[in-house]
Amino acid sequence: MSLLIVGSVAYDAIETPYGKTDKILGGAGTYIALAASYFTKKPQVVSVVGGDFEKKHLEMLKEHKIDIDGIEIKEDEKTFFWSGKYHNDMNSRDTLVTELNVLGTFDPKVPASYQNSEFLMLGNLSPDVQRKVIEQMTVRPKLIAMDTMNFWMDIMLDELKKTIAMVDILIINDEEARQLSGEYSLVKAAKKIMEMGPNYLVIKKGEHGALLFGENSVFFAPALPLEEVFDPTGAGDTFAGGFIGYLAQNGEVNFENMKNAIIFGSAMASFCVEKFGTEQLIDLSTDMIADRVDRFIDLMNFNYVKEL
Amino acid sequence: MSLLIVGSVAYDAIETPYGKTDKILGGAGTYIALAASYFTKKPQVVSVVGGDFEKKHLEMLKEHKIDIDGIEIKEDEKTFFWSGKYHNDMNSRDTLVTELNVLGTFDPKVPASYQNSEFLMLGNLSPDVQRKVIEQMTVRPKLIAMDTMNFWMDIMLDELKKTIAMVDILIINDEEARQLSGEYSLVKAAKKIMEMGPNYLVIKKGEHGALLFGENSVFFAPALPLEEVFDPTGAGDTFAGGFIGYLAQNGEVNFENMKNAIIFGSAMASFCVEKFGTEQLIDLSTDMIADRVDRFIDLMNFNYVKEL
Repeated sequence: MSLLIVGSVAYDAIETPYGKTDKILGGAGTYIALAASYFTKKPQVVSVVGGDFEKKHLEMLKEHKIDIDGIEIKEDEKTFFWSGKYHNDMNSRDTLVTELNVLGTFDPKVPASYQNSEFLMLGNLSPDVQRKVIEQMTVRPKLIAMDTMNFWMDIMLDELKKTIAMVDILIINDEEARQLSGEYSLVKAAKKIMEMGPNYLVIKKGEHGALLFGENSVFFAPALPLEEVFDPTGAGDTFAGGFIGYLAQNGEVNFENMKNAIIFGSAMASFCVEKFGTEQLIDLSTDMIADRVDRFIDLMNFNYVKEL
Repeated sequence: MSLLIVGSVAYDAIETPYGKTDKILGGAGTYIALAASYFTKKPQVVSVVGGDFEKKHLEMLKEHKIDIDGIEIKEDEKTFFWSGKYHNDMNSRDTLVTELNVLGTFDPKVPASYQNSEFLMLGNLSPDVQRKVIEQMTVRPKLIAMDTMNFWMDIMLDELKKTIAMVDILIINDEEARQLSGEYSLVKAAKKIMEMGPNYLVIKKGEHGALLFGENSVFFAPALPLEEVFDPTGAGDTFAGGFIGYLAQNGEVNFENMKNAIIFGSAMASFCVEKFGTEQLIDLSTDMIADRVDRFIDLMNFNYVKEL
């Protein structure tokens, strides 16, 4: 089924204990679309970039069968730029530079050809921008998923709650879930957040895996234990892209199928962190993904037979 | 099969955001033995207490079919005492008081009737005390498991490594694994630690679950997401007790069976944290344990069928 992704397409400069990059391709929309492109046909992207955005990057997205008709190019402006430095444990980072540029006035326009998309993934953006997208859809998508971050909870919580009330799945990390709910326990946090509207909630815990709540059930998938985490940038977006891409591919919206989607999202995220930026995501094959999913199954699979 | 447990039997005073206790029963040996008692027949305990140790606590252990012949009572001395206060997130605590008392001169004596134990669990103690136990066994147990802590890495690392080289499974937490190996990545840490001797390694990650390494495989079990963690004291020891108790019950020492043991250990730990100290552990039934294990299976179970 068709998938529409709204999110930033950007440039990042990243420093980790393993090295440093110049401006490289980044942005939530980019990671989500690349990850989803391995599952669903022609994911559509609504975003905005500046005149400095390189042709080769648009070409690369097209080569991955990503529909970029919805990426507006503002020739006289500059692309969103973020620069950050990770600490030794890779679990915390300092933002060095945030230049909103074109993203500061982003007014998303959903092309007519995208109007019937059945799956909508709203990457982290201002909640009013996210809502504008939902309101432009003439037919409500079968499934709307959204990401957000603590920044929006700090400065526009009411707007954020309005948008959350309109979606089916919220995909956030543990710190965000705690801040949004005011509860430390993730079980209690999940209950409060689902009372805000979404029927499903995914709580990402980084290297500690992800929890799926919904239909009075809970499911947990670990992150793959890796020898090295080279660069965590985009891992959460890649997870979301694999998750929504998998769902859109087979179209089944229920808890059982979302479990599989979580496994595929986790597998995609495990690739993302192995190289800088989108480098590893660009070069995957379905065989590599299937092998990685097998490793997840080995990691989680047990055959309890004995009775007490 | 028979199980011998060596570990502290102690008194604790605990403060958490939910309340405060006077001196209550605690100690690694106590938690391990209580948890194991639900799986294996008559676990044997080697430990030492003072004249202040209450008869009712010895009786309670006996009622749980725990063999206490190996608990030496030094009438003129006092039982090991620890007091601690947990912070609001329950993930960190301050030690307020540590009175070693009888534990300071603990010279473990394995009774003749325990000599043929097939499973040996060494709770956290000085590594030379742990080694003295191994050396007293006339027949090497089929499986020796041990716990330790960062304190011993700080003050007697060489002794510790000698003891680690003699055991089959090391059961430690993530911080301890990192300190022992000098590696941040748990995958790398596991490799280095298994080069020190053990064929299996369990890394406990508290609320983030546990990893099992061995036989060129890795398995992960989550912790049960709980509404409240009331008191984390003893959770790691309870995990170890459920783990080793389950293994000793059916006697199969291999990776597949250890996966089940990890699930049962996690289930037992999830009970432990629901009340103060050993309170919840004392009152379990096999039905309650089976229900809890079912919740773990639901949490982890998925049926991936679709092909890419």
